[in-house]
Amino acid sequence: MKVLPEKTIERLSEYRRTLLNCLDEEKTHIYSHELAEIHNITAVQVRRDIMFIGYTSPQRKGYDIRELIKVISKIIDAREAINVAVIGFGHLGKAITAYFVGKRPNLNLVATFDIDPKRTGTSTAGVTCYSIDRLREIITEKEIKIGILTVPPHAAQEMAKALIRAGVKGILNFTSVSISAPDGVYLESYDMITSIEKVAYFVKHKK
Amino acid sequence: MKVLPEKTIERLSEYRRTLLNCLDEEKTHIYSHELAEIHNITAVQVRRDIMFIGYTSPQRKGYDIRELIKVISKIIDAREAINVAVIGFGHLGKAITAYFVGKRPNLNLVATFDIDPKRTGTSTAGVTCYSIDRLREIITEKEIKIGILTVPPHAAQEMAKALIRAGVKGILNFTSVSISAPDGVYLESYDMITSIEKVAYFVKHKK
Repeated sequence: MKVLPEKTIERLSEYRRTLLNCLDEEKTHIYSHELAEIHNITAVQVRRDIMFIGYTSPQRKGYDIRELIKVISKIIDAREAINVAVIGFGHLGKAITAYFVGKRPNLNLVATFDIDPKRTGTSTAGVTCYSIDRLREIITEKEIKIGILTVPPHAAQEMAKALIRAGVKGILNFTSVSISAPDGVYLESYDMITSIEKVAYFVKHKK
Repeated sequence: MKVLPEKTIERLSEYRRTLLNCLDEEKTHIYSHELAEIHNITAVQVRRDIMFIGYTSPQRKGYDIRELIKVISKIIDAREAINVAVIGFGHLGKAITAYFVGKRPNLNLVATFDIDPKRTGTSTAGVTCYSIDRLREIITEKEIKIGILTVPPHAAQEMAKALIRAGVKGILNFTSVSISAPDGVYLESYDMITSIEKVAYFVKHKK
């Protein structure tokens, strides 16, 4: 299968999250219009995405949730393990570590880094916090390919560069500044201010 | 001006974030293709968005950054103040509080809530943490309209309901579970797993 567009990958990941929640609630089937409503998109979009990945629902009671999770997982999950590190072990770094460890097979959080000696050497959810001075060494040694950036804004670009020099191929930027990355490195940024501004706008403009 | 689509609001918020960063770097003008590259979209999309909000750039050197910030702010910023609360004052709640306070005029974080007596009564960045038992009282008293949900997953839906009963009109859900909200309440969810999965997918599939 060829590389899917970014937005499709995002939606597939979000569908799976919902489907996993449905399993927890002991649901076995779901209709496209239910998925659509939860994700605030059209049922046509849902059906198009799901047909596109080669899953057809022969049943009147909707998609088989377990089956659909399998099909989506085959597409978005890595076949071999990918090692991930969190850079900046303040509140956000800690929240992400606690949240992320063990959530997905083949996505392994194997190290966190910080500049503060009070934080380094500690362990959270089985993950050791290393001094930023050892960034290159640990990234090479543990073959870390993804860095999650939760450092203060002034350090963001410099840290991104250090990660890339050490061999990281994907960066998830949670800082409040835009950073750049060369071709061959995938960069995704999330700024929570955008989400808050969006909610504020629609609270003001709702009928 | 009529209510803009969600994706447009998102992009305008993201452009402004970039423009504010540019100002910090003492840049005065920016081209649509520069904005496009930073945001990983086409220059046509940038120009369409910016024309759509009524700004035209008469100059060869690109958009005037200060002017463009003003035009975007007029659209997305609330004219009157909106009060915001963070529900769940663990690491993520603390990170959001530290990050958010004072970042935007008219978006005021005025309270945080937690169930743990060790956290309540404390103050972070000038914002008091109240007991969850006082949710309704404080939300009414401070006229809080937006709730940012950073509680453990099992408490998410129940807390969302309590917020809505207390008069909140917008919820930003940072928990790992999907929640529902009635018409008239704007719900936005962000799951960091989706961002991480997206980075992992494109790290694996990059040429």
